[in-house]
Amino acid sequence: MSRPRAAIVVTGSELVRGDRNDLNGPFFAREALGLGVEPARITVVGDGPDELESVLREAIGTNELCLVSGGLGPTHDDRTVEIVAKVAGLDLRLDPALEQRIEKVSRLIADRLRRPYADFVPGVRKQATLPTGAVPLGPAGTAPGLVVEAGSCVVVVMPGPPAELRRLWPLALDTEPMRRVLADVRPPDRHVLRFYGVSESAVARALEEAGGDGDGVEATICARDFEIHVDLVADAGAQRRVDELAARLRDPLREYLFAEDERSVQEIVLEACRQRGFRLATAESCTGGLVAARLTEVPGSSEVFVGGVVAYADEVKRDELGVPTELLAEHGAVSGEVAAAMARGARARLGADVAVAVTGIAGPGGGTADKPVGLVHFHAVSPDDEVGLQFELPGERAWIRSRSAVTALHLVRRLLARSEHDQA
Amino acid sequence: MSRPRAAIVVTGSELVRGDRNDLNGPFFAREALGLGVEPARITVVGDGPDELESVLREAIGTNELCLVSGGLGPTHDDRTVEIVAKVAGLDLRLDPALEQRIEKVSRLIADRLRRPYADFVPGVRKQATLPTGAVPLGPAGTAPGLVVEAGSCVVVVMPGPPAELRRLWPLALDTEPMRRVLADVRPPDRHVLRFYGVSESAVARALEEAGGDGDGVEATICARDFEIHVDLVADAGAQRRVDELAARLRDPLREYLFAEDERSVQEIVLEACRQRGFRLATAESCTGGLVAARLTEVPGSSEVFVGGVVAYADEVKRDELGVPTELLAEHGAVSGEVAAAMARGARARLGADVAVAVTGIAGPGGGTADKPVGLVHFHAVSPDDEVGLQFELPGERAWIRSRSAVTALHLVRRLLARSEHDQA
Repeated sequence: MSRPRAAIVVTGSELVRGDRNDLNGPFFAREALGLGVEPARITVVGDGPDELESVLREAIGTNELCLVSGGLGPTHDDRTVEIVAKVAGLDLRLDPALEQRIEKVSRLIADRLRRPYADFVPGVRKQATLPTGAVPLGPAGTAPGLVVEAGSCVVVVMPGPPAELRRLWPLALDTEPMRRVLADVRPPDRHVLRFYGVSESAVARALEEAGGDGDGVEATICARDFEIHVDLVADAGAQRRVDELAARLRDPLREYLFAEDERSVQEIVLEACRQRGFRLATAESCTGGLVAARLTEVPGSSEVFVGGVVAYADEVKRDELGVPTELLAEHGAVSGEVAAAMARGARARLGADVAVAVTGIAGPGGGTADKPVGLVHFHAVSPDDEVGLQFELPGERAWIRSRSAVTALHLVRRLLARSEHDQA
Repeated sequence: MSRPRAAIVVTGSELVRGDRNDLNGPFFAREALGLGVEPARITVVGDGPDELESVLREAIGTNELCLVSGGLGPTHDDRTVEIVAKVAGLDLRLDPALEQRIEKVSRLIADRLRRPYADFVPGVRKQATLPTGAVPLGPAGTAPGLVVEAGSCVVVVMPGPPAELRRLWPLALDTEPMRRVLADVRPPDRHVLRFYGVSESAVARALEEAGGDGDGVEATICARDFEIHVDLVADAGAQRRVDELAARLRDPLREYLFAEDERSVQEIVLEACRQRGFRLATAESCTGGLVAARLTEVPGSSEVFVGGVVAYADEVKRDELGVPTELLAEHGAVSGEVAAAMARGARARLGADVAVAVTGIAGPGGGTADKPVGLVHFHAVSPDDEVGLQFELPGERAWIRSRSAVTALHLVRRLLARSEHDQA
């Protein structure tokens, strides 16, 4: 059985102009894949009616599913519903029950803005007008989503704000037309292997030598966040081939393999600390807070992470982290010696068990012949072990900074994994 | 004269699956707009040949320009060049000069990977094979970009890695076919007004009351990074209308207007400090380093920003920022009093003139009836002034954190603007 295909259509003038990056297309695509539906294409289009109609006509005409976001607002520029109805050959009809629900929300907004509700009436009627047979969802704010059949294609239309779209999405899955599309579809078996410290081409070669994909298994190699992910997706009945392939990849790449699930490296670090009862601290120069920001992204990180010092100026390295002035003078702020002193200082001053430090030259200025832009030193300490590292990778400031933040997190991860291994 | 239109086609299986967010489409769109070309749509498509051909056929058939990224690699999955040639009705031909250049790079790679160059020969021939009449660009790595005429459409094909694409893009602009497309096009006059602390709908109303767009001026209102941007784009000859409209918007929205250029709020804050000779520090709890990370994003920030403390645990607030234990006990870590003590402590301990502090509950856990998730306190201090602020906005952890980081930066901006104003 071949998988049904979904076309994804994202509307928004600011998106097609590149003023903002689209998040809804990738969300729809990941959700579709997880359900066993193949995302065929993602099209971003503005609110011009001709272009929008042409995109929706192609999408609806050639796919089992069409997932649309945006263009559900109250103004005349919000044309998605009207054009979906036109393409599907359906009349538009006011839904009185929906109108009442939207009126309720709109009256609150009118009060808040101190405007007469009469100003809102045309918008409310517009938003409560749906193609015949459409199932309304929500609304989220004043915008309802909808699911409607257009010939042999099921069309799902969702509001553009990503949070609202994500909130209404489960409701769309629970409608009769969507259940019908998904009735015979089995979510694929997936297995991910995540590697760090190895090149994409080396992983590609290992995959080739392990027999490659095929026979109902599709392998995708993808570099993300400076890690290499191998994503194995199995058609029904091919789960054993996935297991075999995964086993054959583990062996040659063992030293780089660090996860077979989707947890971020910061989650893995926090979990490793939690298991050992360790509290964690950071000391950052060139990453300027990125390592701490990643750690505190994780809900509950406060149980493990005590805090960090962003030590940009040398005086802050000295006063807040206790890095000796002589060390700074002798080796310079960007040195393995100072990275080690920063990590030990953070551990002592912040009352942590484990600490990691980063100091480097992110550029574009500040490089010298001895210490060029892209030179970064790292150091991690735990109660029973420590490890230093340096790299020198030319690149742009933002790239050097995020690469350094990821490197620091993987260094702590390795330090904790190593001492765990020694204890075992 | 109507503007030429560009279709943007981004290829990549990992993009259409939502594994990675596309950056090339928005880049092409912004570049096109800046040149006076209208981006019609951005389509993300995988490497399946039928879908890719159908997308390219539509794009090339209905636009003056088609901007393509990805699918230029050496393997059989990289099909962009072959399909562009097919759609354009052009033969493929090996370019011997280009082959030599790619061979040179590939021999270096073969050496580094310790593989025989013979393994690379088929890929090199493939990458050096272009449609008749195509202008090769680069290569970047081993992948050359190209510009080729397909009937009445000029097609630009660029490698997928964003850094390589951006590097080759200026070369594409400098080719004969692109110069011809752009010959009669004038880049539009643009003017941006940026507001903070006001709702999108209030700005929309002010725009309406100012006469709205039209008469050769297009106005887009867009919420980005918790700011509201009004982007005014003028056709040739309508620059005066833009100036009039901008003037009519400034007046009713003056208290929220903070910039009429594209500098980020962190750049504005750093510049305001630099002008007054102030050094800046941060003290962060719930934002966990995001404020410092934003400030240090800016090249040269080390001249102004001395550093910061991420004080997640109360002990760190006490030991590193000097927040009194009694204050923490009496008011709790999330309070205006503690925010003020954190800001003053950062200023004193880190040797700064100006400091800003954030403490709040980012959730999902940790909220109480008194202090719910989304309650955040801010405080900023300068040598002659200080200001506190709190907000309580329900939302998800990531949203609360980034919203708080932006709020903190705007609070310092306002503090500095205020005292500048008082001095004048």
